[in-house]
Amino acid sequence: MTQRFQFSVGATDGKARTGVIDTPRGQIRTPAFMPVGTAATVKAMLPENVRDTGADILLGNTYHLMLRPGAERIHRLGGLHRFMNWQRPILTDSGGFQVMSLADLRKLTEQGVTFRSHVDGSKHTLTPERSMEIQRLLGSDIVMCFDECPALPADRARIAESMRLSMRWAQRSRDAFGDRPGHALFGIQQGGLERDLREQSAEALTAIGFDGYAVGGLAVGEGQQAMFACLDHAPGMLPADKPRYLMGVGKPDDIVGAVARGIDMFDCVLPSRSGRTAQALTRRGAVNLRNARHAEDPRPLDEACTCPACRNYCRGYLHHVVRSGEIIAAMLLTWHNLHYYQDLMQGLRTAIAESRLQDFIRGFHALRAEGDIDQV
Amino acid sequence: MTQRFQFSVGATDGKARTGVIDTPRGQIRTPAFMPVGTAATVKAMLPENVRDTGADILLGNTYHLMLRPGAERIHRLGGLHRFMNWQRPILTDSGGFQVMSLADLRKLTEQGVTFRSHVDGSKHTLTPERSMEIQRLLGSDIVMCFDECPALPADRARIAESMRLSMRWAQRSRDAFGDRPGHALFGIQQGGLERDLREQSAEALTAIGFDGYAVGGLAVGEGQQAMFACLDHAPGMLPADKPRYLMGVGKPDDIVGAVARGIDMFDCVLPSRSGRTAQALTRRGAVNLRNARHAEDPRPLDEACTCPACRNYCRGYLHHVVRSGEIIAAMLLTWHNLHYYQDLMQGLRTAIAESRLQDFIRGFHALRAEGDIDQV
Repeated sequence: MTQRFQFSVGATDGKARTGVIDTPRGQIRTPAFMPVGTAATVKAMLPENVRDTGADILLGNTYHLMLRPGAERIHRLGGLHRFMNWQRPILTDSGGFQVMSLADLRKLTEQGVTFRSHVDGSKHTLTPERSMEIQRLLGSDIVMCFDECPALPADRARIAESMRLSMRWAQRSRDAFGDRPGHALFGIQQGGLERDLREQSAEALTAIGFDGYAVGGLAVGEGQQAMFACLDHAPGMLPADKPRYLMGVGKPDDIVGAVARGIDMFDCVLPSRSGRTAQALTRRGAVNLRNARHAEDPRPLDEACTCPACRNYCRGYLHHVVRSGEIIAAMLLTWHNLHYYQDLMQGLRTAIAESRLQDFIRGFHALRAEGDIDQV
Repeated sequence: MTQRFQFSVGATDGKARTGVIDTPRGQIRTPAFMPVGTAATVKAMLPENVRDTGADILLGNTYHLMLRPGAERIHRLGGLHRFMNWQRPILTDSGGFQVMSLADLRKLTEQGVTFRSHVDGSKHTLTPERSMEIQRLLGSDIVMCFDECPALPADRARIAESMRLSMRWAQRSRDAFGDRPGHALFGIQQGGLERDLREQSAEALTAIGFDGYAVGGLAVGEGQQAMFACLDHAPGMLPADKPRYLMGVGKPDDIVGAVARGIDMFDCVLPSRSGRTAQALTRRGAVNLRNARHAEDPRPLDEACTCPACRNYCRGYLHHVVRSGEIIAAMLLTWHNLHYYQDLMQGLRTAIAESRLQDFIRGFHALRAEGDIDQV
């Protein structure tokens, strides 16, 4: 196993590409989907079962972990990998995005952000330097720059100002990160939907130099069409020999469209969150197991899926445990959703490797257009 | 594998004994602890993991299943084993006890009990005949007689009257059950703490003839001392060549004392319910993981336990996920508690087989008297 962090592109098909990220904690096959383990757990899953779905890497949230149980505490307990029993790679976000969406009484300055915890009201400060320190204490394999991200729509001046602040913070993140062999630091491109601002951001980041680059500031309300329009050019502004990560995305069709546009990495709470609210994500689209039409259905959720929910239970059972509020409903549907996402990523990787991505995408949309199987 | 239901006693040590119940769905090693899968799930566990803890048999609750999703629906979906993905033996209670403790607007007659569902207010009737039908529809391997059980303390006349009603219902249960090779019907001894009533009940049941016998009407508020006083004589009134089942028991020390008094089977929600409320049950007694003293503790819950919670996580992690309200807390602590219970049963079986049960019991109490490990 390598002691370095290294990305190599494999096959390409149009703008899409397969690749492998080698890290001291194992390989990450790209395009990759990273399940979200917000508070040191992928909700309703044991980590060994997350691995069973095919995940090579998890995402941890700096904001949540710094507030509870605290980065210093996790460090004293051996780091995040040991703490949560996941020995493979972990990417941590910088905390910046979630401070903006979750914390109370935020105050933004050139220096950083002060805010109150949504857990207990305690006061905290996040700066590029502190974010780097927290991610180091957690033991993160892929560290994200501390950035600021405005919600869309926002006016151009606000987006430009925010992007420039994020670029100054990117330099401070790079300086604070230092030299840590085997660990990677990713820069985050901002600039909203403004092409020239995206260009400026990409230039600034490339000049600093990172191990990977995220397309940030998307999936914040702009809609899929606008996101894809941005992704038609944004990934190409970033170095082709480094992984490109689209943060917080997304729905299965978002991911498919983004892979075709050159994105290598994704994370999203959708599969796990949906699994806790009775929604299964399948080849045929979303299926709400709470619906009464499933009550007497002896068929599996998806007869072609090999996850435990589909292999061992009928829709009638899944409906029953959803309606009864049983924990196993969240366990089984989360497992299924994560399994489906990893199956989708494997399908994309194989299609790219075999130069048939467009066929794969046509088949993907055709099956979804058919919709779920009819009622029994 | 046998096509018959058959019990054979193995070793004995005092009144305690080991044994094996052979059924078409697999062997049950006795003394046995049956995890409770109330609504067709052992809460927060996958059934394959319940098996991993060492469980040979689960208990299902007729009352809950008849109300939701309904016995006929489970039957149409292939029976309870297929529905909940547990192919080994299942014992179902008769519904009688839970109608009394959970349902609204109960009305008790010679014929049976009418009540309103605690789920949706719908009206239902349970009789010995309907209880047998429901348990047949579920596909239960061990069916319990429909009985009535007064809460203690109750006056002797009430207990005697109730016991005699239960004995008439036992005959009706036997008649309705019919001849079902490979399936067993257990009678339930009543009589409260009154020795002569227990004798009369045992005689009535033995005259009818059952495949096993439960000591019913205990663990309903009488306390351990009174329960043990009753168990000093009650099991000996029941046929020695049939399994004896103490319903709804109990805490680890209840089980140890009851095994020493000749009981072969147990069920209780305590390990699974405790697992959802941050309470771990260990060799050293109960440990509340919510307590702040665990926050920085790098040690496992029990260094000698081989369950995933103890093997893969420190107390600090378990504390964190409890405090954060994460589902994994219920999953890990339930797993641990069920694992501990099955370890305890295996320890009892081995000690009986090696004629050192009294030593085992002394060691059991000595370690509990020491209490939990000290704070870090």
